Amino acid sequence: MTRFGAVTIVQFEHRPGILDLGWGHPLPSLLPLGAWSGAGAETLETYGWQALTYGHPTGPAPLIDWLCAHVGDATPGQTFVTAGASHGLALLTQLLTGPGDVVLVDSPTYHLAFQILTDHGVRLVPAPADEDGLRPAETAALARSLGAVFLYLVPTFGNPTGRSLPLERRRELVSLGVPIVEDDTYRELYYGDGAPPALWHLANGHGVVRLGSFAKTVAPGLRLGWINAAPSLIDRLARLGYVHSGGGVNHSTAMTMATFGTSGAYERHVARLRDRYREHRDALTGALGVPAPDGGWFVWLRLPAGLDAEALLPRAERHGTSFVPGPAFYAGRGGGSDHVRLSFSHLAPADLIEAAGRLRAALPAE
Amino acid sequence: MTRFGAVTIVQFEHRPGILDLGWGHPLPSLLPLGAWSGAGAETLETYGWQALTYGHPTGPAPLIDWLCAHVGDATPGQTFVTAGASHGLALLTQLLTGPGDVVLVDSPTYHLAFQILTDHGVRLVPAPADEDGLRPAETAALARSLGAVFLYLVPTFGNPTGRSLPLERRRELVSLGVPIVEDDTYRELYYGDGAPPALWHLANGHGVVRLGSFAKTVAPGLRLGWINAAPSLIDRLARLGYVHSGGGVNHSTAMTMATFGTSGAYERHVARLRDRYREHRDALTGALGVPAPDGGWFVWLRLPAGLDAEALLPRAERHGTSFVPGPAFYAGRGGGSDHVRLSFSHLAPADLIEAAGRLRAALPAE
Repeated sequence: MTRFGAVTIVQFEHRPGILDLGWGHPLPSLLPLGAWSGAGAETLETYGWQALTYGHPTGPAPLIDWLCAHVGDATPGQTFVTAGASHGLALLTQLLTGPGDVVLVDSPTYHLAFQILTDHGVRLVPAPADEDGLRPAETAALARSLGAVFLYLVPTFGNPTGRSLPLERRRELVSLGVPIVEDDTYRELYYGDGAPPALWHLANGHGVVRLGSFAKTVAPGLRLGWINAAPSLIDRLARLGYVHSGGGVNHSTAMTMATFGTSGAYERHVARLRDRYREHRDALTGALGVPAPDGGWFVWLRLPAGLDAEALLPRAERHGTSFVPGPAFYAGRGGGSDHVRLSFSHLAPADLIEAAGRLRAALPAE
Repeated sequence: MTRFGAVTIVQFEHRPGILDLGWGHPLPSLLPLGAWSGAGAETLETYGWQALTYGHPTGPAPLIDWLCAHVGDATPGQTFVTAGASHGLALLTQLLTGPGDVVLVDSPTYHLAFQILTDHGVRLVPAPADEDGLRPAETAALARSLGAVFLYLVPTFGNPTGRSLPLERRRELVSLGVPIVEDDTYRELYYGDGAPPALWHLANGHGVVRLGSFAKTVAPGLRLGWINAAPSLIDRLARLGYVHSGGGVNHSTAMTMATFGTSGAYERHVARLRDRYREHRDALTGALGVPAPDGGWFVWLRLPAGLDAEALLPRAERHGTSFVPGPAFYAGRGGGSDHVRLSFSHLAPADLIEAAGRLRAALPAE
């Protein structure tokens, strides 16, 4: 969805006449402009030069201390501040894999992770999965037989399905000894009683690396996230040449996030997001008459039998809406032609209802 | 110089009793606290949500437009915003090299670049050089014979020497067709009439990639810089998985820098830095009785005959000062034992004079 050549300000491109359910971006009016501006000014007042010079390689203490207290299940020695979850995955892939190595990926899963992995020459193999998500025993057997370096998945309010891996499968998976990279980007965006326990949490930090992000909870443009991992891996990250040279990967922004966190602004903002994105979710799922996911930003819509997602796309766009066809979320595009991903984050509820109506109009008469 | 384990705020570590000439960091009081705070608030007011959401993959238009006008010799299509010069070098190494490939490095040159290159499995080979810097014809011959992927150097106010490659050698080098990565970090910090033309400039952008940085001119903690390169390479950078996924690598900070640039704050601040760091340079070189470099942050001090840099270090520290011994700046540590690098950026002039006195006291009586 990116246009090269002409430089713009933002990645999003408005297409006249289209209410686009394809963008997994925040609703612009839900970005915390005032609170972030205040946190920036307060950080420079409080910390002075320390907010602008070379930082600690794993991230600055004020953010790491707040973050560890906030997540409750990681120590400072298990924490490395990244320039976002994607950057974290790129760093891990650089450190842990070599060209030709196998990485298992959940099926379906976050499509842009595929290229981050293949940029480093990794060979992607889909993990066995069914309607409830990844199948742990079969996945572990496949990982062993292929010598997979790790398994990548988004087990909580996942992209694209909105679903979470059931608790019993989580327990089974972490008991099987498969090295796991858990993309935990959507954890905070629950619309019911909370999120299921992270694989990182269930594993007590053994054999699981967790990717966290402030992209969905605060703002994507900050390029800020974190990795939780064993201290030995955190040390290897900190010793990478450009991390050491730069004094961390996003020091000043991390310092502002520390203020945003310790001031209480983070908790207030995320509580507001839960209320607002719950309304978004209910608007879209209500208009479509489909079950509502418990968290995240996505609805994984099964199409009527015989209808192909990619064939539907131009028809939907003629009706004034759009989406991401399911095959994008399968490594090698080996599946998903009977599903589309609809995002409810980027449009306001009234627009979501209108978009759902257009999508229904684009479907063949039942 | 980085301590792992205990998480701190900044990379710098104060050692009681030591006036340390080893740190290539800015003087804390010269970081633009107020102006940066103002630019951050103004950016959020001016651009609103566009400053916080997913950005354009090569960097946001307001920064790229200002930057191209400022440098005067690159187009938007030749520009990619990085998370600092080190990050730029890491990205280029990832894209352009494979394990075992040869990269030539100037000798001496920026020591932390070595690890950025070797993190990707590159084999470093020192380029032939003499007292005036890199020798172009011999370097080109060596590059050809080894099939070197590129040559890395800091030709302008270089780290560690403070020297610039003479103009005739610049012209010769770019005429020889060696692919070059030019680290141009210190260009703005000239204390005389200006800086010599960049290799990028002399080559009209052909065969040269330029790394720029805001670390020395504004603040290291921002993690912000840029790459100038052929549009085909800029496109490859923009298509990297985590760049595409993240919408650029440091969008919000880049937007604030656009405001800092277009408002005139950048020019005012850099003019002030030139005046202040010129005083630093004169304080240190005057106290040592050595020639003053025309720019940058470093003095490359030749030791009295027979004195070894690493042997001198503990003796200097007993006298209350410190430095980086010369061998650190040679790939494979194959040289430099007769030199030390002294930085005049991080200490105020009075401290520089005191440190110079301590260093002279640590030298053997003449």
